Amino acid sequence: MSALAPTTGAMEGRVHKLPVRVYYEDTDAAGIVYYANYLKYAERGRTEMLRTLGVEQHRLREETGMQFVMANGEVKYRRPARLDDALIVETALTELGAASVRMRQVIKRSAGDELVHFHAHVACTGPDGKPMRLPDVLRDALKNYVSE
Amino acid sequence: MSALAPTTGAMEGRVHKLPVRVYYEDTDAAGIVYYANYLKYAERGRTEMLRTLGVEQHRLREETGMQFVMANGEVKYRRPARLDDALIVETALTELGAASVRMRQVIKRSAGDELVHFHAHVACTGPDGKPMRLPDVLRDALKNYVSE
Amino acid sequence: MSALAPTTGAMEGRVHKLPVRVYYEDTDAAGIVYYANYLKYAERGRTEMLRTLGVEQHRLREETGMQFVMANGEVKYRRPARLDDALIVETALTELGAASVRMRQVIKRSAGDELVHFHAHVACTGPDGKPMRLPDVLRDALKNYVSE
Amino acid sequence: MSALAPTTGAMEGRVHKLPVRVYYEDTDAAGIVYYANYLKYAERGRTEMLRTLGVEQHRLREETGMQFVMANGEVKYRRPARLDDALIVETALTELGAASVRMRQVIKRSAGDELVHFHAHVACTGPDGKPMRLPDVLRDALKNYVSE
Repeated sequence: MSALAPTTGAMEGRVHKLPVRVYYEDTDAAGIVYYANYLKYAERGRTEMLRTLGVEQHRLREETGMQFVMANGEVKYRRPARLDDALIVETALTELGAASVRMRQVIKRSAGDELVHFHAHVACTGPDGKPMRLPDVLRDALKNYVSE
Repeated sequence: MSALAPTTGAMEGRVHKLPVRVYYEDTDAAGIVYYANYLKYAERGRTEMLRTLGVEQHRLREETGMQFVMANGEVKYRRPARLDDALIVETALTELGAASVRMRQVIKRSAGDELVHFHAHVACTGPDGKPMRLPDVLRDALKNYVSE
Repeated sequence: MSALAPTTGAMEGRVHKLPVRVYYEDTDAAGIVYYANYLKYAERGRTEMLRTLGVEQHRLREETGMQFVMANGEVKYRRPARLDDALIVETALTELGAASVRMRQVIKRSAGDELVHFHAHVACTGPDGKPMRLPDVLRDALKNYVSE
Repeated sequence: MSALAPTTGAMEGRVHKLPVRVYYEDTDAAGIVYYANYLKYAERGRTEMLRTLGVEQHRLREETGMQFVMANGEVKYRRPARLDDALIVETALTELGAASVRMRQVIKRSAGDELVHFHAHVACTGPDGKPMRLPDVLRDALKNYVSE
């Protein structure tokens, strides 16, 4: 992989790890990362786990009409991240349902401190916005990576 | 209130209501509001409830050193909002703790559809980032507005 | 207009004025509004000028296929905005071209300080992304509001 | 450099190159990157050029009180970026002034298409927000990298 391609992170066993840098755009006047922006990091992590396993979302949508929509999320903020911090987003698939997936994500400082925990329940929807069964290409890519 | 002052919304009983418009900045390539951006609307709602009750956060911080930090949140996405939608953020205070508050928020379309539910547990922290008791000025402003 | 409808601002002569509040989401770790976020305020101003004059962008797109795309912009930052500031976005149409419009925008503190100047050259494009003549409904809405 | 450290990009001659991925957070309902978000990419590029040359902004601020503030910018949008695109932000320093720097930035698709041009004039300010001469550590880091 060239130094000039964006990183996709890497799988370590069944856990995907994505490095993320904190920029000014992510922080707020309290001097820390704005609380909603950790969910952007989380979404980058989920996206790159899929890409690492061979699935690109815009292609999935073009080919099957399927689109992910967040159904619900639970987020715990333990410690704040700050400007210039090097973070790692860890993503584990915890459930592969008929028309949804569950993921457990931890955002850490590279040094190891756990900052934010996020549990995501993501629905698969069709072009009409209604629930849709996971396409085979997606199920096949994910089925060996379900964590306990 | 002048038409050229930003709205602070209004209390209806113990519930604060803030109108919000969906702009391009809020949406994503799926044609709907990006999932993390509802948390921006929620934070505007909490901020304006406080402002309506006489508390401005930058002043609170200057005068008491206190700052709100999200401890954890639970968000349920029921229906998506779209470009140009007129929304209402409803905010109710459900618990006034020693060093934290809990709020229940619902983001609706003006027409009435409930789109997103958010439960926020917000900690009060001091200049050192450690838990801090709610300053009296804040407790006094809020104590008559706790919903059951 | 109900207190619970989002404001569309108002025309004063040929200048549109939109009130905007600065929230945490807009600021960065330098304690001021992040430089790219003034362009969000500017876009809200352009959008609400159109809405005030009877044009909603999602309808324009559905009915004519037309979509605005920024061609180029020039932005001057004179003074920073801070958390909780009440701002006004002033928008003036300076040129109504065949397939583009030019607008001059000033973001002020309500008290009057000019903070940011933005000159926008916005292209009208069709569903294929190519230049498209302004639809009549748009030209008719705007033609009496060109500032010198 | 570990695969799990965020990339800082790399200098090629006097031009810094940073790879960037387009995520849902960056796009809008028009299906393309929202116009203000290219300025986030540009800021990441400027930040990583400095980091590559040994300067971290939060340290510069702690040690010298200096902080960059955008004075003005000019942006030309030639082609849009889309979800999942792999981009490169090229940053060249074009002027090293007494209390400001000028940079020329091009955002490309990895395949080579030029999408956005940005000219930035960035002021150095002290803790009081007033102009401040470039600290020696910054001038020394940059002086051999001025492009014509």
